[in-house]
Amino acid sequence: MRVGVLTGGGDCPGLNAVIRAVVRKGTQEYGHTFAGFRDGWRGPLRGDVRPLDIAAVRGILPRGGTVLGSSRTNPFQEEDGVRRIKETLAKEEVEALIAIGGEDTLGVAARLWEEHGIPCVGVPKTIDNDLSATDYTFGFDTAVGVATEAIDRLHTTAESHMRVLVVEVMGRHAGWIALHSGLAGGANVILIPEQRFDVEQVCAWIESRFRVRYAPIVVVAEGAMPQDGQMVLKDGSTDAFGHVRLSGVGEWLAKEIEARTGKEARTTVLGHTQRGGTPSAFDRWLATRFGLHAVDAVHARDFGSMVALRGTDIVRVPLAEATAQLKTVDPALYAEAGVFFG
Amino acid sequence: MRVGVLTGGGDCPGLNAVIRAVVRKGTQEYGHTFAGFRDGWRGPLRGDVRPLDIAAVRGILPRGGTVLGSSRTNPFQEEDGVRRIKETLAKEEVEALIAIGGEDTLGVAARLWEEHGIPCVGVPKTIDNDLSATDYTFGFDTAVGVATEAIDRLHTTAESHMRVLVVEVMGRHAGWIALHSGLAGGANVILIPEQRFDVEQVCAWIESRFRVRYAPIVVVAEGAMPQDGQMVLKDGSTDAFGHVRLSGVGEWLAKEIEARTGKEARTTVLGHTQRGGTPSAFDRWLATRFGLHAVDAVHARDFGSMVALRGTDIVRVPLAEATAQLKTVDPALYAEAGVFFG
Amino acid sequence: MRVGVLTGGGDCPGLNAVIRAVVRKGTQEYGHTFAGFRDGWRGPLRGDVRPLDIAAVRGILPRGGTVLGSSRTNPFQEEDGVRRIKETLAKEEVEALIAIGGEDTLGVAARLWEEHGIPCVGVPKTIDNDLSATDYTFGFDTAVGVATEAIDRLHTTAESHMRVLVVEVMGRHAGWIALHSGLAGGANVILIPEQRFDVEQVCAWIESRFRVRYAPIVVVAEGAMPQDGQMVLKDGSTDAFGHVRLSGVGEWLAKEIEARTGKEARTTVLGHTQRGGTPSAFDRWLATRFGLHAVDAVHARDFGSMVALRGTDIVRVPLAEATAQLKTVDPALYAEAGVFFG
Amino acid sequence: MRVGVLTGGGDCPGLNAVIRAVVRKGTQEYGHTFAGFRDGWRGPLRGDVRPLDIAAVRGILPRGGTVLGSSRTNPFQEEDGVRRIKETLAKEEVEALIAIGGEDTLGVAARLWEEHGIPCVGVPKTIDNDLSATDYTFGFDTAVGVATEAIDRLHTTAESHMRVLVVEVMGRHAGWIALHSGLAGGANVILIPEQRFDVEQVCAWIESRFRVRYAPIVVVAEGAMPQDGQMVLKDGSTDAFGHVRLSGVGEWLAKEIEARTGKEARTTVLGHTQRGGTPSAFDRWLATRFGLHAVDAVHARDFGSMVALRGTDIVRVPLAEATAQLKTVDPALYAEAGVFFG
Repeated sequence: MRVGVLTGGGDCPGLNAVIRAVVRKGTQEYGHTFAGFRDGWRGPLRGDVRPLDIAAVRGILPRGGTVLGSSRTNPFQEEDGVRRIKETLAKEEVEALIAIGGEDTLGVAARLWEEHGIPCVGVPKTIDNDLSATDYTFGFDTAVGVATEAIDRLHTTAESHMRVLVVEVMGRHAGWIALHSGLAGGANVILIPEQRFDVEQVCAWIESRFRVRYAPIVVVAEGAMPQDGQMVLKDGSTDAFGHVRLSGVGEWLAKEIEARTGKEARTTVLGHTQRGGTPSAFDRWLATRFGLHAVDAVHARDFGSMVALRGTDIVRVPLAEATAQLKTVDPALYAEAGVFFG
Repeated sequence: MRVGVLTGGGDCPGLNAVIRAVVRKGTQEYGHTFAGFRDGWRGPLRGDVRPLDIAAVRGILPRGGTVLGSSRTNPFQEEDGVRRIKETLAKEEVEALIAIGGEDTLGVAARLWEEHGIPCVGVPKTIDNDLSATDYTFGFDTAVGVATEAIDRLHTTAESHMRVLVVEVMGRHAGWIALHSGLAGGANVILIPEQRFDVEQVCAWIESRFRVRYAPIVVVAEGAMPQDGQMVLKDGSTDAFGHVRLSGVGEWLAKEIEARTGKEARTTVLGHTQRGGTPSAFDRWLATRFGLHAVDAVHARDFGSMVALRGTDIVRVPLAEATAQLKTVDPALYAEAGVFFG
Repeated sequence: MRVGVLTGGGDCPGLNAVIRAVVRKGTQEYGHTFAGFRDGWRGPLRGDVRPLDIAAVRGILPRGGTVLGSSRTNPFQEEDGVRRIKETLAKEEVEALIAIGGEDTLGVAARLWEEHGIPCVGVPKTIDNDLSATDYTFGFDTAVGVATEAIDRLHTTAESHMRVLVVEVMGRHAGWIALHSGLAGGANVILIPEQRFDVEQVCAWIESRFRVRYAPIVVVAEGAMPQDGQMVLKDGSTDAFGHVRLSGVGEWLAKEIEARTGKEARTTVLGHTQRGGTPSAFDRWLATRFGLHAVDAVHARDFGSMVALRGTDIVRVPLAEATAQLKTVDPALYAEAGVFFG
Repeated sequence: MRVGVLTGGGDCPGLNAVIRAVVRKGTQEYGHTFAGFRDGWRGPLRGDVRPLDIAAVRGILPRGGTVLGSSRTNPFQEEDGVRRIKETLAKEEVEALIAIGGEDTLGVAARLWEEHGIPCVGVPKTIDNDLSATDYTFGFDTAVGVATEAIDRLHTTAESHMRVLVVEVMGRHAGWIALHSGLAGGANVILIPEQRFDVEQVCAWIESRFRVRYAPIVVVAEGAMPQDGQMVLKDGSTDAFGHVRLSGVGEWLAKEIEARTGKEARTTVLGHTQRGGTPSAFDRWLATRFGLHAVDAVHARDFGSMVALRGTDIVRVPLAEATAQLKTVDPALYAEAGVFFG
């Protein structure tokens, strides 16, 4: 069988580990050959293919990013998108596709299979860990590790000085990175998108922390939002919102804390350092196993499925179901972390 | 309630994270107080107690080792052991014990509860990840990370030179560290205690690797053993066994490979670097959650139970059941990794 | 002899290594005893002393921060400052002081010795590496390491996507961290405080980088400034300056690049992660040797001196001279790096 | 000008950084072109050349090893070696050579220039830091960092248990890695090749360490040797020497300590992990500057010279002088570290 492989969406450590595992097992155990489509769905749309054999995947396991390139292109938003994909697959004699990506990329794969009979198998990828069908996605552990190491370094300053330290981490819609790195790093406040925060409560935690002679560390997900009305700057300027959008919630919160508590606050914005670089051992292990099982699913012609982690097992779930719902932080889990606040 | 806490057995990153979580939640949410018993079961045997309050656990989250000390003391092998423990608990007014440890420590806890009614809750700890009742134990991810980073560094030499590189990792009875780090590091051979290896097969993989112009990396668990008869030195000296015991299977294997393939081989023995130092973010998160749930179990008077990870949930399982069986590497899982050998 | 030790100014990895070396050698080789003054010059001003013996310095070598605490207190700005310090020294029977700090802390030490005969020896400390009398100061290598690791991780995104990545690093008056981490990380643009940058030139480098199909990484020191007139927001708002001060030059530059090139730009602000956490091996080695030689200087009664690194030797220089001039990046050195721009 | 580049001898992090800097500056500033010779001196001997332009060096800065390959081939030991090199240079129209390597590689370059007029410029490379003409060589800081991180992790076990921990590090003839990592890691004993050690003294230090309730960490360079007569196994077997050679001084010492002190001892052998993997920021900076200045030397036709670090400056020294003498650890420097022993 000739199998196409593509990676879509944002960067995520572990993509190359999936590709390598797919090609190694598919070639050696099943005798499949592979076509690497460049830049996500843009590859099959444009017929942009690169050879993908064992030599091509040598040495890529520990590398961040994706040797296939990526994009956010959606064939359903392109003229004649599905037809052009079918033409490419026919021309390249590709009989099945392995799509590695997040909600968008996998949603396309689900529709291509269900509505157009294009045989797809999905591998879930989101650094934010917000896909409901799998316990974890690769990339998440790496991001949590980067954020935790940053928080570790900030503790020194927290111990020596009387400053508030704010760390802005990734997570637009789900607070998993903030929650895990905040717990692992020993943060004194963790703010997540799932629950609007009360700046006054944040400041109360900060004051209580100072009373035991330590400075507080505040971990805030980029998508976390204060309660209604709190995001107005002291001077009432209507420029406020524009400004905040520009510099991010971390900067805004630091400024707000300074204004309310009189303490100096400093911000660290980790940005894309969380989604680049070499994957953690856990992420390489998970990505490798996802790759091995994805090529098994193709071999078993179990199309329309996605591989997923359940406990220590890799299972298959329907693609459509997998992308149906965002996995956000359970309020009970967030409450559990609350014992460490303040 | 006044609750005793102790840590038993070998070093494991995350012990301090458990202790901190127990004390933070127990004190703040339940109003418990804590007695820290020193050096595992030796503490309650000798009445060796240290105060354990929130101030005492400040800053210990990222530190390896255990602030309570540890030992392999077994009260059932000490004269009057159980009576002495009961006396200490009575004297210290301790109503329940949280025992953090591996098979031995938890086995004692199980018997103390079942046979003598001493209220115990267990927290599983083994760097080797070989406890069957839980998906993972803390410390394992850290060990796999250390080993993977070492393998990563060896790839450079593997690419540049024509040497065989042997890495000996921990795992006397179970090959989890070898399997996970070998997969994550891209090893060409992984040898585990669960399956006796054939040195000739190992050399065949090595030769096949050299044919694609790369040098092989061999990851071997310290408890891995060759097939019968293979561990005789070339010269037939009966000193062979004594020698091998001295220098470990890694050294032995390197020497054997040199003799059989004519290629130079070099050994790295990671030793205790795998079980010391700061825990990974995953291990801190897991250890923290184990601690939070252990103190919940005490509060719920659910004695004779142990906390365990199932998927992303922390559950409680009977202590007795938890320690009944060693969790070894499933042959199917080992076979899955075989696609990367050679 | 009884010797006082204090640490002043901002956080810097390696402070504890100096303290430990001073106490180990002073106690063991010279039979000195030590008084630890808390919080920089505030300690001798207020008579705030803690015991400092070998037990007190055990285990502190790898820890960031300072066990003595720090402050920016200047006794020359306090009423009766010098007299109060003399009283404390007399009361504590302290015959000499080792002051570990930057320009300000050492400037005070220089004046105390020269103007008031208080026997001081200095140890230079600045994460920015901007003291002219020494080749390097400890803390700098750690900061460069943190920044380089962040840049390494950003390369993944730079390779996969078409985004400009801006990293803001420390350095208000000197660009050493930006220069070294930018060179070590393979940045495409490095901007330092010593030379006002031309935003148009920056954008030209960015465009040229995109033409070879890679995204550019821009490292900017927090104190770097655009040429006159360039830091006006597009809309001409006079709020511009206030805004920029708030969110930092990194944020401002990213926005400016977006406006001028039409490319998306993302910012990472490393902040205090650069000056906390465990020191690098180099910094521990340098700080340890500074400590050993500082206590030698005290023993030799070579007061008014400061230890300094010259090549691989530790030498002594006059305190007054040491703090006279800021060591900024030599234009020739900056020009040397220019071959990698664009 | 067309310039050849080659790398010789053992692995060393930073080789690729040199190559990249040479090609970037040579191409962009001087308009030179480059020929990459494969596998050290074997390349020009066999005419094994690969193209080396800016595209070829993209992305190699952070990678360990060398994209040119390496070998220990010595043209003076090959039949007609010099003539064959001259032929290759003529055929490839190469007018100058940049040789990156240690004593052997640079010694060849010196003779080729002096005896045969082949225009060579040298770049010093030795992980052991034992070249006398330069303050540091790249690769050394990375090796020290790897060893220090290992020692850091062992402290946990040293604190929790009563075991002796022996770490064997690189250094056959010079103890720089042992000295720097031992100081940076807080080792209790450091043993170097420059000074034969007394096992009884080592055991005395170990016993003294145990008396303050901590377990000792012993760092031993692979080339360190006990005093005459001490390396005889207890049983007096003449196999002793052969055995010891096999398993290394670390294993031997651990066994000896166990026999003499009755304490358990465990060994970590870091092996090639010290010379592989990504270079530290310092090593990338140094290697990059070496590369920039080497191509300057070629452009200035300053043949027979080698670049070297003196303080923070890169200077040129005569190749012949540079390789004349091994730089070993100064006894005074080793004595300075002695304050931390025991």
